[in-house]
Amino acid sequence: MLVSEATLVIGVDAMGGDYAPEAIIEGAIAAVTEGGGEFQVRLFGDEARIQTLLGDPASTKDISIVHAPDTIGMHESATAAVKTKRDASVVRMLESHRDGEVHGCVGAGNTGAMMAAATLILGRIAGIARPTIGTFFPSERGRVLVVDAGANVDSTPRHLVQFGVMGAVFVGMMLGIERPAVGLLSVGEEESKGNEAVVEAHRLMKNAPFRFVGNVEGRDILKGKADVVVCDGFIGNILLKFAESVPLFLKTKLRHAAGKGLWNRLAVGLASGTLRNIMREWDYQEHGGVPLLGVNGVAIIGHGRSTPKAVRNMIFKAREMIDRRVSEHIAASVRSFQTAAET
Amino acid sequence: MLVSEATLVIGVDAMGGDYAPEAIIEGAIAAVTEGGGEFQVRLFGDEARIQTLLGDPASTKDISIVHAPDTIGMHESATAAVKTKRDASVVRMLESHRDGEVHGCVGAGNTGAMMAAATLILGRIAGIARPTIGTFFPSERGRVLVVDAGANVDSTPRHLVQFGVMGAVFVGMMLGIERPAVGLLSVGEEESKGNEAVVEAHRLMKNAPFRFVGNVEGRDILKGKADVVVCDGFIGNILLKFAESVPLFLKTKLRHAAGKGLWNRLAVGLASGTLRNIMREWDYQEHGGVPLLGVNGVAIIGHGRSTPKAVRNMIFKAREMIDRRVSEHIAASVRSFQTAAET
Repeated sequence: MLVSEATLVIGVDAMGGDYAPEAIIEGAIAAVTEGGGEFQVRLFGDEARIQTLLGDPASTKDISIVHAPDTIGMHESATAAVKTKRDASVVRMLESHRDGEVHGCVGAGNTGAMMAAATLILGRIAGIARPTIGTFFPSERGRVLVVDAGANVDSTPRHLVQFGVMGAVFVGMMLGIERPAVGLLSVGEEESKGNEAVVEAHRLMKNAPFRFVGNVEGRDILKGKADVVVCDGFIGNILLKFAESVPLFLKTKLRHAAGKGLWNRLAVGLASGTLRNIMREWDYQEHGGVPLLGVNGVAIIGHGRSTPKAVRNMIFKAREMIDRRVSEHIAASVRSFQTAAET
Repeated sequence: MLVSEATLVIGVDAMGGDYAPEAIIEGAIAAVTEGGGEFQVRLFGDEARIQTLLGDPASTKDISIVHAPDTIGMHESATAAVKTKRDASVVRMLESHRDGEVHGCVGAGNTGAMMAAATLILGRIAGIARPTIGTFFPSERGRVLVVDAGANVDSTPRHLVQFGVMGAVFVGMMLGIERPAVGLLSVGEEESKGNEAVVEAHRLMKNAPFRFVGNVEGRDILKGKADVVVCDGFIGNILLKFAESVPLFLKTKLRHAAGKGLWNRLAVGLASGTLRNIMREWDYQEHGGVPLLGVNGVAIIGHGRSTPKAVRNMIFKAREMIDRRVSEHIAASVRSFQTAAET
């Protein structure tokens, strides 16, 4: 199927994720149906399988397929696989993005492969040393972007500053916050507090092209003391997984409590619904995946367990990132920083 | 007041903490009253002030005072202050411990000063490079010790292994777990996952004198996948403060929810009590302070906001650590490790 120049096309890896291709295709159909022709989805994967699952041609007129029969497993070495498996769905998808055939990408398969493919094929934005993944935490005031959320370990001070640049642009463009507050995650507010990398990053951030509000502590994330919280990906990943485990922990504890007496059981039953609503903010399905920031393009990385709803949300998030020209704004922000540093 | 050789004496810094000396003295009185002569408390601080606050001599016959008029403020440089302020209560207390006049120490003042005084005055256990602070997190199965919880940043692989040694002994002796499971906090289960220090620590831990269960992730802490979770103090501190902020976050969110309709208000009201009970496990007052492990002695460090109840609990925890000879067992465990490594 040919797509006119003006139409927005979002590439989706039909073969990536625990419930692929069924859940992915279902999510894609939901997205284009809701989109009502405003954008199209191009599925990358095993054409015959996808065709069988697509069903009713009327509801899928905005979906096209690119045959890419190979897949990269969850435990394969990402970079090696991306370099050798030329027919892998994720590789073909990113190549299409590089060539301008699709305008953004969504994938819920091997996270490392999606990152490696995006970085190798799209290339890094000039001035960005390491692309990063940011993820939203809930806060008392709204939402907080924690960046890096696991893409990079052993980040240097310069990397940390760049995470701040990318996070500030992303939050600014996506949440419409004019000058988002960027905090540096540390173990105390004083600029002398932290490990070596953080102390040096603090110094560099004073001249960064974002509103730096200084160090923030672990307790400040949920308080919403900053719009963007910068940390090394080792910490970001541990924090994210810890936070995601809190709802289940509370549920288990509540269930225990419910065992003790009718009154408690009633209380717990009533509270569960309320708690569930609060916890929804921690739900990856609602988030619609996380963006890989710092590459020349739009790449949304989904959870391995992405459901149709999550896929639908990822497609809409990709579309929004394309519309708001997040990558272009990151490039401009980094450029201004470099120019300032050189003068 | 003279104390017979056989009597257990616990030193308490009467001047340390936001509510000192009142809350400290009240906690000390509660402890000795409950102890019924089984141990004594020696208060270090301004003798006249303490005397005035002690009140009824009958209820304080197991409390003695050492006049130590100086204090170290919350924002003073810890090591410098410990070296120069010879009459600071925390310095005099640790010197008494070194000299065998008291058998364990409790302090809720400047954490850095307590750590520095304990390390400088008591000395490190032979073979321990850096003393560490461990703190308990609640888990689905009971409790998990996260070590280091903030005493050390930029820990080397060898430091991390030693945190594991100390944590395993502490949990083994204090919770009565025979061979506690020690996990290394990382971003994936595979031994190749993590930052440089963690990957190397994983290798070293295979030969450590504790039951090493491999890497654990952020989500495994509350699940109770290990009894001891080892990490650098930068991460431990951030995790601890994040976890401590969860109850308040939920309370705020629940209050918001309660605003919307009578039914919700009822549910929230009923749930609050149940939640409060669950959250109690995160309450520093209940913990009774955290131990500084790896020094030649017993030092319990309290929260700055320690209440009488927290002080009472710290005194009992110090007593338990003395009874169970935690320091001696750490020394033996490190020795066996070194011997094994050398042969």
